[in-house]
Amino acid sequence: MTGRWPGAPLPPPRQARFHRHEGDFRLESGALLRNPVAAYETWGRLDDRRSNAVLVLTGLSPSSHAASHDPDDDPGWWEGMIGPGRSVDTERWFVICSNVLGGCHGTTGPSSIEPERDAPYGMRFPFLTLRDIAAFQREVVRALGVERLHCATGGSLGGMIALEYAASFPDEVAGVCAMNASGRTYPFAIALHHLQRKAVFNDPAWRQGDYYEVAQPAAGLSLARAIGTLSYRSAREFERRFGRSWKEGDPLSYGGLFQVESYVAYQGAKYPITYDANTYLVLSWAMDSHDLGRGRGSFAEGVARIRADTLLIGATSDLLTPPWEQAELEAALRAARRTVRRVEVDVDTGHDSFLIAIDRFGAELRRLLEA
Amino acid sequence: MTGRWPGAPLPPPRQARFHRHEGDFRLESGALLRNPVAAYETWGRLDDRRSNAVLVLTGLSPSSHAASHDPDDDPGWWEGMIGPGRSVDTERWFVICSNVLGGCHGTTGPSSIEPERDAPYGMRFPFLTLRDIAAFQREVVRALGVERLHCATGGSLGGMIALEYAASFPDEVAGVCAMNASGRTYPFAIALHHLQRKAVFNDPAWRQGDYYEVAQPAAGLSLARAIGTLSYRSAREFERRFGRSWKEGDPLSYGGLFQVESYVAYQGAKYPITYDANTYLVLSWAMDSHDLGRGRGSFAEGVARIRADTLLIGATSDLLTPPWEQAELEAALRAARRTVRRVEVDVDTGHDSFLIAIDRFGAELRRLLEA
Repeated sequence: MTGRWPGAPLPPPRQARFHRHEGDFRLESGALLRNPVAAYETWGRLDDRRSNAVLVLTGLSPSSHAASHDPDDDPGWWEGMIGPGRSVDTERWFVICSNVLGGCHGTTGPSSIEPERDAPYGMRFPFLTLRDIAAFQREVVRALGVERLHCATGGSLGGMIALEYAASFPDEVAGVCAMNASGRTYPFAIALHHLQRKAVFNDPAWRQGDYYEVAQPAAGLSLARAIGTLSYRSAREFERRFGRSWKEGDPLSYGGLFQVESYVAYQGAKYPITYDANTYLVLSWAMDSHDLGRGRGSFAEGVARIRADTLLIGATSDLLTPPWEQAELEAALRAARRTVRRVEVDVDTGHDSFLIAIDRFGAELRRLLEA
Repeated sequence: MTGRWPGAPLPPPRQARFHRHEGDFRLESGALLRNPVAAYETWGRLDDRRSNAVLVLTGLSPSSHAASHDPDDDPGWWEGMIGPGRSVDTERWFVICSNVLGGCHGTTGPSSIEPERDAPYGMRFPFLTLRDIAAFQREVVRALGVERLHCATGGSLGGMIALEYAASFPDEVAGVCAMNASGRTYPFAIALHHLQRKAVFNDPAWRQGDYYEVAQPAAGLSLARAIGTLSYRSAREFERRFGRSWKEGDPLSYGGLFQVESYVAYQGAKYPITYDANTYLVLSWAMDSHDLGRGRGSFAEGVARIRADTLLIGATSDLLTPPWEQAELEAALRAARRTVRRVEVDVDTGHDSFLIAIDRFGAELRRLLEA
């Protein structure tokens, strides 16, 4: 947006279509969202039995544009995974991807105009949980005529939502594949999210969320994102890629930069151009709320709600969701006599591995899809 | 200090004594520091042969007060390690600990008064390296009449300085024990330090370092410290101690807190009371400069300068200095045919383990001291 709201994020992907919920959408907290909209894209064709739908759930940052729609289109964020002949083969599967509720790429979120006020919600946007996000994803799925998903999959936040989807709507999903994601958010990740939010709060330009008439709180959001970048990668990878290579300045004076500093600074700096700080906060809190057991008696009972065949893929080097967290989820699924397979991919690319080691992750996902 | 400099740190420990360098102290960068002072404490008695001195080097935050001097004294930061009958037995060893150059507990640093200006240095304080810090530590050692240390030891930054000491003055140290410290600072730690510094820079109260007439940039320094806290501990430890325990507020609204959030927020919040933001920056950059090989041909050649018997102790859960970094140093020492022993202690307390698993770390150190 421009004009009155220069601090609002960029418009949604030009390929996006929109689903509008008529009336109030009720959230777990009891709050109501009026006429929320979801931005989504699809690939491939729904078959006559409506049995070939694969829901792809995004991580924190991406839009609905998971893959290109034709050779002239912009590449998507999971381009290597989704397409004709790829692991998620669009000749065979009807693929759906939508921007999450609370997001900033076309789906209703804090940067959307609040109908009553004709101004962006800001932090008046209600508190979300991953169950709210899963429930809103389901609206899109059903609006597309799909009553039961063949599979729900995603990495990081997307993997968590996939698991919540399968636990919330156990009859409506046959398979689930969660990559670099666990069954609840553990305290190390919660602490990290807390500090990332603090980085935003510490920026005076955040203005308690009412910055849309001015600009994104770029310094704070960049720092939050750069902290995230560290948690998404690994020490081994940084050593392999950067070592102690020097970028610029005098090594024995202030203001010089190692290559790795330049890298993380760049990862942070480019983020506020395409992302909304309040969405970052809302989704960060939503991730902290993630616990398959919350309000369901126990973790074991929450996990046992899942009836889908479950595939858990992790990376040995994942700091944010270490493999032992997926092992706990695997154990809970086995204890409930569910069909589960867990794979630890030995790569140094950390939490982001589902975006990088696409061949390894994709081969496992393909096996689940074709089982 | 109070009055004119309310933003200056608290006074040094009341037990500290002071060594003043007469004239200019030359730094690696070529800059000169005029009449710098070191705050130090000692325990035990130097023997007649002056052969029983153990230099204890501090981590980033502690003062010279490593241990109490008598039963009525305040406990020190390594109280369980140093004292009569303890691993560093003060009945046997003459123990020296001084606040590092650039520090804020009595040794000259950015919060000290710059003689020419009669005002705190702020970021006019010159760029430091760990070799500068080691060289200034050596001044204290020699002023106490010690020509050769029996051992230099410390954890984290203290371990790095101990290694630099042994590489810079190979004839002047018989043993070195580096805990949770490696032979150079790897890019993951450099990236983390970069973001911690950014947290300070982002705080308008930092004022380019000239905040002493007002107050510490508390929000920024607290965030930097809290980020550090995550890197000092581990996900397993947080799960053991906190899990998803809830502290306060409504879990489905903004502003609630998990226990772990309260913990890291507290670790951050208390820091600016006793610590100086500019010291934090100066020492953070100094750590990034750490590389035993810098200016010495290669890492192998720099490491080969060390002739002391070397003990490397790490923790399996250390995120900031993972054990494979110590393994690289061990390999380089072995390649140079040096006497080295490396121990990986299997604990979940991460980088801070040298302060927590004192029995395990202390037993290894005692073995080196008594060899």
